[in-house]
Amino acid sequence: MTPAWLSLPCRAPDAAAAEHAEARQAQLTKPPASLGRLEALAVQLAALQGRERPSLERVQACVFAADHGVAAQGVSAFPQAVTAQMLRNFVTGGAAVSALARAQGAALEVVNLGTAHDPGPLPGVIDARIAPMTADFTQQPAMTAPQLAAALDAGRQAVQRAVQAGAQLFIAGEMGIANTTAAAALACALLGEPPVALSGPGTGLDDAGVARKAAVIERALARHAAQLHDPLEALRCLGGFEIAALTGAAIACGQAGLPLLVDGFIVTAAVLAACRLAPGVRDWLLFAHRSAEPGHARLLTALDANPLLALELRLGEGSGALAAVPLLRLACALHQGMATFAEAGVTGGPR
Amino acid sequence: MTPAWLSLPCRAPDAAAAEHAEARQAQLTKPPASLGRLEALAVQLAALQGRERPSLERVQACVFAADHGVAAQGVSAFPQAVTAQMLRNFVTGGAAVSALARAQGAALEVVNLGTAHDPGPLPGVIDARIAPMTADFTQQPAMTAPQLAAALDAGRQAVQRAVQAGAQLFIAGEMGIANTTAAAALACALLGEPPVALSGPGTGLDDAGVARKAAVIERALARHAAQLHDPLEALRCLGGFEIAALTGAAIACGQAGLPLLVDGFIVTAAVLAACRLAPGVRDWLLFAHRSAEPGHARLLTALDANPLLALELRLGEGSGALAAVPLLRLACALHQGMATFAEAGVTGGPR
Repeated sequence: MTPAWLSLPCRAPDAAAAEHAEARQAQLTKPPASLGRLEALAVQLAALQGRERPSLERVQACVFAADHGVAAQGVSAFPQAVTAQMLRNFVTGGAAVSALARAQGAALEVVNLGTAHDPGPLPGVIDARIAPMTADFTQQPAMTAPQLAAALDAGRQAVQRAVQAGAQLFIAGEMGIANTTAAAALACALLGEPPVALSGPGTGLDDAGVARKAAVIERALARHAAQLHDPLEALRCLGGFEIAALTGAAIACGQAGLPLLVDGFIVTAAVLAACRLAPGVRDWLLFAHRSAEPGHARLLTALDANPLLALELRLGEGSGALAAVPLLRLACALHQGMATFAEAGVTGGPR
Repeated sequence: MTPAWLSLPCRAPDAAAAEHAEARQAQLTKPPASLGRLEALAVQLAALQGRERPSLERVQACVFAADHGVAAQGVSAFPQAVTAQMLRNFVTGGAAVSALARAQGAALEVVNLGTAHDPGPLPGVIDARIAPMTADFTQQPAMTAPQLAAALDAGRQAVQRAVQAGAQLFIAGEMGIANTTAAAALACALLGEPPVALSGPGTGLDDAGVARKAAVIERALARHAAQLHDPLEALRCLGGFEIAALTGAAIACGQAGLPLLVDGFIVTAAVLAACRLAPGVRDWLLFAHRSAEPGHARLLTALDANPLLALELRLGEGSGALAAVPLLRLACALHQGMATFAEAGVTGGPR
């Protein structure tokens, strides 16, 4: 039942490259450790890229989109039509993730895993439709086992394309009306937290809406209680096509040794599932930002993650991850471009 | 005694442009306010640039360098020779600020206000030397009144050159062995805080060094107590040539209507002095990062400032400000490049 590829081993980061990078940092013309997290980032990227001087020319972003049966429970501020409409907006360049990718020369791919409304032919969107939407998980499991396998595999295929294209960093984004509900339900199952702790406003619910959302998740957790000890079953019962694709992409990143820059609440829930299924994935994760969605903090704690940014973003699409790309690039530029004490004739450096 | 130009009025930001920018934000294809601080940044830049759609092609960074007589009290981990050595490193491209400016196409200017060691002829360094260093402020005022006037004016001239060159954003950095001591002393005088509250490790003092630094500041505050109620006198008695230049630059930015992206501890102390002398300056300040230097938090609170980044930087040179430039640019790219609900045919937007 479990797709065989999920249990392939993850690669290990290159400890020797990290050591060489650390030694270089100590020789650069600055007080020791004065570049703080930008130093640590350069060293981490050295380990992940397997070379003393990492660089980040080729960034691949991929947005996975899908609709959710649980939207019928009135858990989103937007109608389901928006998912299909946004697919078009991604590829015509008008969405936040499109503008961010364009501004930074990042490649952007869009994968449709199934929308309630047919978006029509959309050049630039990869058609990987599994069904018009998941099942309403207050009534039955969100996905069948073959549907889950297809969604996980769509994530793996996106990573394979990125590796093929020579990407040095993968960013996974998502779009799907009601998907903070699915992500919160999955997070509750993985963390053993109550729904109130992980239900937030998402794209704009009011307090009553958040309470309704928590109640919906409560019912789902009760219905599927017998399955939820297994992370893969939790993903099948409570997740979404795009969430499972994100989980598959994270595992594939670990297996391929491609660093994944993690976006906000939904992506973090999906990578937590990935880490439960394949703990080696954790080594390949960088965390971009702390979202305004209140439950994000608990997910980050569970992953021992300290994101680079905290800009009160709560848009999704991979937008927060793309916003952090410049910091990674600047960390590389400093590591590569600064002179050593010896080169510059400046007093200081390791004694 | 007070240079007359200091009391010229500051410009006012453009409230109408901010309103138009806010109206545009509400129409872009995203849940309301979901881009958090990136939305607020775009609106603020619209007000400062006086147009609905701000942009940030031309960024001018300027590093002011000078030596400090108080270095004789053993308050720095590095010898004074480093100030002159770093001047060369700035213009030959090996310093952190050089690498950051290069990576982002920002123009970088270096102004020498007086170094203990003669750096020799350095193409690319603007020679504005006032004296080899300030006086040791534990013994006498750091500067004479004409020296202070010259330093303030050097800052103003740098801003005038930036305006002439069409800069849309000014970044001021600093270099000077022992200048966290001068900045902390100035901050104590302006805030009425005790030295222990504002003395930190700077470029790398141990605990005993920090305690010695606080004691040195204590003696200086006692010696100059009668002068310190006046911000300009506090700057003259306790500041440095580069710190006064930063203060002058901040006031000139307010007068010219050129946004200033504030760096770390030392620059923040200097702009606090500027805001005391000319409260209208505050409107033109953007805050880049929260430094690892412990006293920075108090300065930020006094200025009601919430910086964009917190990356544990403590290098100075303007490096933290340059690290935040990409966020300003991405805020502009989103504001300019995203489609409206109407343009994209997406359901939503203001009702």
